[in-house]
Amino acid sequence: MISNIIAKLLTVEALFMLPALAIALAKGEAASVMAFAVVIILMLVISLPFALRKRRDRNFFAREGLLTVGIGWILVSAFGALPFCISGAIPNYIDCFFETVSGFTTTGATILGDIEALPMSMLYWRSFTHWLGGMGVLVFMMVLSPLTGKDGGESMHLLRAESPGIKISKLVPRMKRSASILYAIYIFLTVLQIVLLLLGRVPLFDSVTIAFGTAGTGGFAIKNDSLASYSAYAQWVTTVFMIVFSINFNIYFLLLLKQFKKFFKDEELRWFLIIVIAAIAIVAFNTFSLFGSFSETLRHSAFQVASIISTSGFCTVDFDKWPQISRTLLVLLMFIGACAGSTGGGSKVVRVVVLMKSARRALYKAFHPRAVKHIYLDGEILDDDTVESVASYYLIYFISLAAAVMLITVDGFSMETNFTAVVSCLNNVGPGMDAVGAVMNYGAYSAFSKIILSIVMLIGRLEIYPILVMIIPQVWKK
Amino acid sequence: MISNIIAKLLTVEALFMLPALAIALAKGEAASVMAFAVVIILMLVISLPFALRKRRDRNFFAREGLLTVGIGWILVSAFGALPFCISGAIPNYIDCFFETVSGFTTTGATILGDIEALPMSMLYWRSFTHWLGGMGVLVFMMVLSPLTGKDGGESMHLLRAESPGIKISKLVPRMKRSASILYAIYIFLTVLQIVLLLLGRVPLFDSVTIAFGTAGTGGFAIKNDSLASYSAYAQWVTTVFMIVFSINFNIYFLLLLKQFKKFFKDEELRWFLIIVIAAIAIVAFNTFSLFGSFSETLRHSAFQVASIISTSGFCTVDFDKWPQISRTLLVLLMFIGACAGSTGGGSKVVRVVVLMKSARRALYKAFHPRAVKHIYLDGEILDDDTVESVASYYLIYFISLAAAVMLITVDGFSMETNFTAVVSCLNNVGPGMDAVGAVMNYGAYSAFSKIILSIVMLIGRLEIYPILVMIIPQVWKK
Repeated sequence: MISNIIAKLLTVEALFMLPALAIALAKGEAASVMAFAVVIILMLVISLPFALRKRRDRNFFAREGLLTVGIGWILVSAFGALPFCISGAIPNYIDCFFETVSGFTTTGATILGDIEALPMSMLYWRSFTHWLGGMGVLVFMMVLSPLTGKDGGESMHLLRAESPGIKISKLVPRMKRSASILYAIYIFLTVLQIVLLLLGRVPLFDSVTIAFGTAGTGGFAIKNDSLASYSAYAQWVTTVFMIVFSINFNIYFLLLLKQFKKFFKDEELRWFLIIVIAAIAIVAFNTFSLFGSFSETLRHSAFQVASIISTSGFCTVDFDKWPQISRTLLVLLMFIGACAGSTGGGSKVVRVVVLMKSARRALYKAFHPRAVKHIYLDGEILDDDTVESVASYYLIYFISLAAAVMLITVDGFSMETNFTAVVSCLNNVGPGMDAVGAVMNYGAYSAFSKIILSIVMLIGRLEIYPILVMIIPQVWKK
Repeated sequence: MISNIIAKLLTVEALFMLPALAIALAKGEAASVMAFAVVIILMLVISLPFALRKRRDRNFFAREGLLTVGIGWILVSAFGALPFCISGAIPNYIDCFFETVSGFTTTGATILGDIEALPMSMLYWRSFTHWLGGMGVLVFMMVLSPLTGKDGGESMHLLRAESPGIKISKLVPRMKRSASILYAIYIFLTVLQIVLLLLGRVPLFDSVTIAFGTAGTGGFAIKNDSLASYSAYAQWVTTVFMIVFSINFNIYFLLLLKQFKKFFKDEELRWFLIIVIAAIAIVAFNTFSLFGSFSETLRHSAFQVASIISTSGFCTVDFDKWPQISRTLLVLLMFIGACAGSTGGGSKVVRVVVLMKSARRALYKAFHPRAVKHIYLDGEILDDDTVESVASYYLIYFISLAAAVMLITVDGFSMETNFTAVVSCLNNVGPGMDAVGAVMNYGAYSAFSKIILSIVMLIGRLEIYPILVMIIPQVWKK
């Protein structure tokens, strides 16, 4: 059963490599043509037999859903890394794996010092992983082939395991249809950004890859200086779309249905916008002396804030050189991240909101031990299980953070480097500070640390459980 | 009612300044004599009328207990800071307040660049604040004067608000007697350490002040190089006693009663010792090349680990210069801290244990949504309220941490400095890293940041609630 789903997944991935193969052919990149062709054939040979086999076992619960998603993402990354390696674009396989995990998890952390040296087909594939990973590779597969007739069984468990946020709200009763609507919105917004960039005379290839990176809130760029050398117009368009892709897609669905009342009741969106505006104001105020002109200050502040809170990780300036107030604020924004149900990472605004409300309730309870106090979200009482799950999420989140920081100290980088590297990877942002700052990369870390950071990115993207289910044996005891 | 308790508290504090006054007289420190005399008289004049007044209001619940402790600690620090200021030993009152809060909260963070320049009476008072703060100033007062005939009412609320840990276990049915037993153990161990130091030819004044700093797990030393210039013997004695004072005092009581069965069942103690031994091993392995000889490596590793996990903050070497593995490990140990019911700070080993068990349960629940799983501690089921209170504690702990780090960025210090400064203050350790490292001090921070850090130290020592009760107005709404 699990192998069947994963086999289908790999088949889909192989098909998605075809455009990259086409680009390699068109541009005459011989090594890349060979690499993509070999990998596509290899993947199809391995996965097709499993994918076509009839399924028997129907025991598919939360546990199996989590496991499928965990294994699925690791294999998708492992195979997705092969073209880089085989073509010689990135010689070391661990580096390729790191880069591909970073792509699919929409982190955007790179080990490449010279991005522009990559062939175009590889740049395309690298950016396309962001776009695929953004909405969830399994959700995509669900759109293409529903898993069971009895919709909601496995699909629900898979969606729950792969989608960020504190609860899954089905847009429409049928799971497959919900996923299709979300993907339609996703594709529409991506195309819209491409068109707007093209209108600003950004070359087609650049527009497409930037849009992939923005839509997935990934952050891989095709230039060494990220988005610094593009026009102010292109930077503003990207800023707006980074914000757009950080918002729960259900919101757009509500707008389409003209359900404005529900729209205005959405607390997460409100808080997200408040945080974004406040952060831009603080950063602009703090960095004004660096830029001088008001418009430039606003553009760079807005871009960097949008990039970090959306967990994209593009940049237009080296924010590592900014004053401490802005630097620390940006690291804080990494923890918050985007809205649930968006393509962005981080711990999600809604969790921060619930966290703050839990804290307030805890304070209240300390002083009124016998009082019963509910937590409200969007005007409704939040059930205790959800509140507890948010607390559990943060517990494991911080334990993972501390453990990872401790493990990668072996490389001897500064504490700030290690800390921000893990924070950035865990929240799927991309750049950190100091030796992994905006203009730096992760290449100097050892293979061991790159593997740790890859795991951290997966833990972050899949929101902890699907990855830990594989690490912790106790779960599988009867 | 609250004013009555606080007035008694200040009266007691005034009396505790008498030894310092005596030292000032004996050593002919004119400015100090004047300062202590003025402050003692001032405090008695202000507090005695309130202290002697008959109490009427008997409404004393959790809320009032927390408020009393919060206000009590702030006033005790505010008055305790006056001698430094009036005598001119520390010219700036904010600095004096920071130093005194650091003393009473047993943090040991100092703003002094040249500690040895302080008069002896001031050094004595500075170290003595550690000793008083270690066991809790209000608990001490309870020993001297029980608050009510109906033992357990206010006393219980006060003790709960002032004592670290997840629950208060009364040793014997009567509160006052419990507190007396704890203080007897505290005094006995302090005297034992003084005697052992004297046997190692450490001068009397040094022995007494070091013992105060060790017993309270504070960390104020009377030398600029902390304990570096003392003999290996004195350092080992201090290492052992830092560990001794990090262990729940109930354990010693159990040993006195020969209840060895309960003793061996104590999970917190077991984990504490495992963490200490593992940390010493890692640090020793990591720093061996710096020292060369095995005995010296072991001594410095053990001392620094004991100093940090006990949240004392003494040092024998500049651990800020150590390799990243050891540095990061030490920062991690700051978060853990000592055992509940000891004089040490940090979030307490028992909370970390419960946190880990909660995380394990959360993982289990993610995979078996319908399973009921209890958390056991010391072989008994831990009730949900306690588990929840641990989660709440950490929520507010990390929110306070992030807020404080953000606020003190205004001074422009490095992220590592700010982060470790707040971590160190919140966990009542003392030194941090970088610009607040082992051989540095907090003097360069602005008055604003010093006040923030003082609040952070109080939040850490009083375990969050008593300080926040004053900041958050909602609590007082009917």
